[in-house]
Amino acid sequence: MEEVNNNFVAIKGHISGAPTESDFEIKTEKVSLLARDGEVIVQNLYVSVDPYQLNRMKNHSSSHAAINFAVPITPGHAIDTYGAGRVLASGRPDFVKDELVVGLLSWGEYTVVEQGRLLNKLDPMGLPLSHHVGALGFSGLAAYGGFFEVCKPKKGESVFVSSASGSVGSLVGQYAKLFGCHVVGCAGTQEKVDLLKKKLGFDDAFNYKDETNLNSALKRYFPKGIDIYFDNVGGEMLEAAVANMNKFGRVAVCGAISEYTGGGRKANLEMLHVVYNRITIQGFLAADYLKCYADFISITAQHIHTGKMKALCDISHGVESVPRAFIGIFRGDNIGKRLCRLQMSERLDQTLYMV
Amino acid sequence: MEEVNNNFVAIKGHISGAPTESDFEIKTEKVSLLARDGEVIVQNLYVSVDPYQLNRMKNHSSSHAAINFAVPITPGHAIDTYGAGRVLASGRPDFVKDELVVGLLSWGEYTVVEQGRLLNKLDPMGLPLSHHVGALGFSGLAAYGGFFEVCKPKKGESVFVSSASGSVGSLVGQYAKLFGCHVVGCAGTQEKVDLLKKKLGFDDAFNYKDETNLNSALKRYFPKGIDIYFDNVGGEMLEAAVANMNKFGRVAVCGAISEYTGGGRKANLEMLHVVYNRITIQGFLAADYLKCYADFISITAQHIHTGKMKALCDISHGVESVPRAFIGIFRGDNIGKRLCRLQMSERLDQTLYMV
Repeated sequence: MEEVNNNFVAIKGHISGAPTESDFEIKTEKVSLLARDGEVIVQNLYVSVDPYQLNRMKNHSSSHAAINFAVPITPGHAIDTYGAGRVLASGRPDFVKDELVVGLLSWGEYTVVEQGRLLNKLDPMGLPLSHHVGALGFSGLAAYGGFFEVCKPKKGESVFVSSASGSVGSLVGQYAKLFGCHVVGCAGTQEKVDLLKKKLGFDDAFNYKDETNLNSALKRYFPKGIDIYFDNVGGEMLEAAVANMNKFGRVAVCGAISEYTGGGRKANLEMLHVVYNRITIQGFLAADYLKCYADFISITAQHIHTGKMKALCDISHGVESVPRAFIGIFRGDNIGKRLCRLQMSERLDQTLYMV
Repeated sequence: MEEVNNNFVAIKGHISGAPTESDFEIKTEKVSLLARDGEVIVQNLYVSVDPYQLNRMKNHSSSHAAINFAVPITPGHAIDTYGAGRVLASGRPDFVKDELVVGLLSWGEYTVVEQGRLLNKLDPMGLPLSHHVGALGFSGLAAYGGFFEVCKPKKGESVFVSSASGSVGSLVGQYAKLFGCHVVGCAGTQEKVDLLKKKLGFDDAFNYKDETNLNSALKRYFPKGIDIYFDNVGGEMLEAAVANMNKFGRVAVCGAISEYTGGGRKANLEMLHVVYNRITIQGFLAADYLKCYADFISITAQHIHTGKMKALCDISHGVESVPRAFIGIFRGDNIGKRLCRLQMSERLDQTLYMV
């Protein structure tokens, strides 16, 4: 077998507004299994499905120039994403066949990883592979770096998390509880709210869709004000959160999903409140906190092992499932980290502690 | 003379929108010159006239709960403000008659300063008293603390200052130039623009009223983007500045004068740009940087002495001039620090190096 068929997802053209299934196609290409010098050929096992990819699919976006992994996606081409896989063939001395790896793979069944592109050996540490793409991947690093480095929490502070049942928010809330903060989350369904309160240990949670006035809702849930707001959504929720921040409050802006599809309105911030309460609003990317990587992995893996943290995965199956899984994120139909599991043999499955 | 008539400014009622002269009255009260225990009776010489006072005159404002000196102003009562004066009588062992002082005085001719209220002895260091209320007072501290501590500049960075000919902006631009930054300011008249370029050493400046699109204007003045934005105005200018910030850009929010009168619209921030460019937007108050006070005073006084910095004062005369001086700030009719000089004798005048 010197060649395989690689099925992969591509966009047909640039996307504006909310994505639909007709924006995507599944393409097939031949991939040679004879790795050239510097190449590693990876069979993808789990790949990450993240809302930020929508910004890469647009014709114009502030994100495009910002950082390597946010470069625009070319219609018809494979779409790179973080993922875990297995080495099928290696043209590099530092990777050998059958090794497990994590890195910048693609929404497809195979990825030819060129020299210089992110690729690391993976020690599963007895945890499911899916966790290494979610809670122990960039979503986890965003939660860890964003909460500890950007928010700089103090014990006893009040923390508000939006998209609290999502890939990053669900981890932020748990880090904050373990650290000794009072944590309230918001989400978009009663099921998610129950999950936050009953399974993830949030002190309280609410369904923002049930609230006619977000400002009043936050006053009710934070009668003494908010010290830290971990923002995944932007827009009106950011505006309401800022208006409820305490003195020296910190807002970590991880994402602005309400603004990605162009549907929600932008945040109209009350700057007078920002000045007098000396509020800091800081945008960040997980990649900025690679310096914390070793601590992040050891602490988070330990918490998951001991059951102190729960890593929620929301897994779709097969490359054909990716467009629908991706589109659904903008409707809030995921709980926890959305991943796609690619086809693999039963044997490999068991070996890798798949859940 | 055991009693004097004190003429002082009061508001007739709470103010909403832009202030007008009819919102104010000059009242007269008797002040005993026999200081009681703990009191210091001060003849006010220069008092500060600042836009933030408008927020204190409102019925409701985010500022009211934030910090001691932002508490609401009661109609009919004296209005406290930073100023310089001379001790007329002291009921405290640490102050003696005829000493010069700076502290929380009032928009009036005399202030009875109770124990616990800000009052310090003043060494004029050979500089005009007015400078001690402006460039060496809280406006200066806001510029110094905001630029060095909040913006954390690096040499060669590009700095944008709004209200650049105002009390704080004019100093920020000069600190930034002396530090080795590239500085562009905006102001609201050609006269101010000329002043920035010809007298204060700004690299460039523009009249924002001549620009139909602030975003394009900033792209023209900062083709390589903005690293630091020192914001005195909020609203549309903040929005345009954020959209032009470079990676890891910092916005120090010192004020939001365009929003104080309720006339301008709020900033609609592009959060996607904030996230991907990892922009930090931080509100602050001068009072947070009292820890820098000694450095601030010695460095700034030195720069003024050697002529490296110019401390612009815009002085009105007599307590009756305060309402008009205050109202004018919201129309941008001041250049540099707006102060009111109270009546004083010719002799005192010369002694104190008045300019």
